[in-house]
Amino acid sequence: MTLEKKSEVKSHGGVQGVYSAMSEACRCPMTFAVYVPPHARGMKLPVLWYLSGLTCTHANVMEKGEYRAAATKHGVIIVCPDTSPRGEGVADVADNWKMGMGAGFYVDATEAPWAANYRMYSYIRDELPALIAANFPADMTRQAITGHSMGGHGALIMALRNPGRFTSCSAFAPIVQPSTAGWSKPAFEAYLGKDEKPWRQYDAVSLIEDGARLEHVLVDQGSADSFLNDGLRPWLLEEACAKAGMPLHVRMQEGYDHSYYFISTFMADHVAWHARYLGAS
Amino acid sequence: MTLEKKSEVKSHGGVQGVYSAMSEACRCPMTFAVYVPPHARGMKLPVLWYLSGLTCTHANVMEKGEYRAAATKHGVIIVCPDTSPRGEGVADVADNWKMGMGAGFYVDATEAPWAANYRMYSYIRDELPALIAANFPADMTRQAITGHSMGGHGALIMALRNPGRFTSCSAFAPIVQPSTAGWSKPAFEAYLGKDEKPWRQYDAVSLIEDGARLEHVLVDQGSADSFLNDGLRPWLLEEACAKAGMPLHVRMQEGYDHSYYFISTFMADHVAWHARYLGAS
Repeated sequence: MTLEKKSEVKSHGGVQGVYSAMSEACRCPMTFAVYVPPHARGMKLPVLWYLSGLTCTHANVMEKGEYRAAATKHGVIIVCPDTSPRGEGVADVADNWKMGMGAGFYVDATEAPWAANYRMYSYIRDELPALIAANFPADMTRQAITGHSMGGHGALIMALRNPGRFTSCSAFAPIVQPSTAGWSKPAFEAYLGKDEKPWRQYDAVSLIEDGARLEHVLVDQGSADSFLNDGLRPWLLEEACAKAGMPLHVRMQEGYDHSYYFISTFMADHVAWHARYLGAS
Repeated sequence: MTLEKKSEVKSHGGVQGVYSAMSEACRCPMTFAVYVPPHARGMKLPVLWYLSGLTCTHANVMEKGEYRAAATKHGVIIVCPDTSPRGEGVADVADNWKMGMGAGFYVDATEAPWAANYRMYSYIRDELPALIAANFPADMTRQAITGHSMGGHGALIMALRNPGRFTSCSAFAPIVQPSTAGWSKPAFEAYLGKDEKPWRQYDAVSLIEDGARLEHVLVDQGSADSFLNDGLRPWLLEEACAKAGMPLHVRMQEGYDHSYYFISTFMADHVAWHARYLGAS
């Protein structure tokens, strides 16, 4: 697969790059950001994935997430994918930020017209890791994952469904049960069909109910987040984990909202937390 | 003067606010950002001004500058003004990012049509400090100033022309001699007239030649900055300071460009450097 370099800029001692490659899964060019911290020649670095939320591209967290200082400090590569396929011919719904472009929900859609391009689960799980492994100084035996909101959901289901792949999983204000949340249920129905059974494989709470387990999970949630009670509901994850005997660390952060002002505040903390499990410095 | 609160968001333990107030100097509402770090009740904090570059508003550095972690660490208020008057009836030049809105150059224009609104020197020097003093827990006896590009120019001339006001002055890739740089000279001519004599009061190199002095000046300049040789030319400042016997610390930063990826890399450094002179923690 050929990688197109869109930009590479020096920052915090490393290189913040933006790249694009034709995706077989999504059948369109997909753009993503990779930050590679300074490192000795020939050295391979652990990888932290950051999955973004609704309406975002790779660029939002790259510009506002404040992850580079911490990534440099700990010697961790940060990969920031897009949130959906994009471009002409890709299905979309006008004026609906919860479905279509910017709202891939990290699922492989099975229903028309979405199934043609909306295969973000395969893209993030198989295709993009292969690209990262082939083109960056990445030690793919050491991966961790995090994300925000819809991307927190993505991080949780990626980790839950691929045991052993990620040393640790964290999330900022994740959607923990998208199959029942008002702002994700319509997309699940559109992408996956009316039969709710296949939805469970893309729903963190359902996956835990169905037996999936993780060892190291950290969730930060702002108490002033306006989506707390309908979209996010971290207590559903807490209940499922308590029932399953699965360890979970949820930190309610007093006064924080859903924005990058919240994410950037705790980003360094998350990178440091993952670095411990990744065996980074 | 009544302050309109546009937004206040918790971040890094403090409050990132955006406010607006009618400006007498600029005869239009002017928006600005203020970050107030966490502090004990009744405590007054030192203030670091950040003046932005061409095309920017208050928002660019607020979103991409990564100053809040350092401001919280050192207990410093950060004030980020806009770069020009704006709005209906304010003079502008279509398709010219070096003149008009977003390009106030921190001067008090004397020529029509600019003189009606473009009075950024008075706004930043007199009007906004009074608003900050009246509305925030700011110790106005402890102020420092920094800025980027056109804003680095602004920081230098504000400090040079107001001795004793700022403990220290730093700049990211400043325009050090705007009266001769291709990208600022047309604006100087438009705002201040063809007679170049009054230009000197808004030109850092000229001010030093004319006797102005500063004690603590730090400049960071990226070596890969595409504006280095025509717009910025830090060596002109170095020459003027050497001739005048004025101390100056210029750091050429290998491989960095002109963007916020450069600014954010060295922001914590600048905040820490100013904090020393401000008597902050």
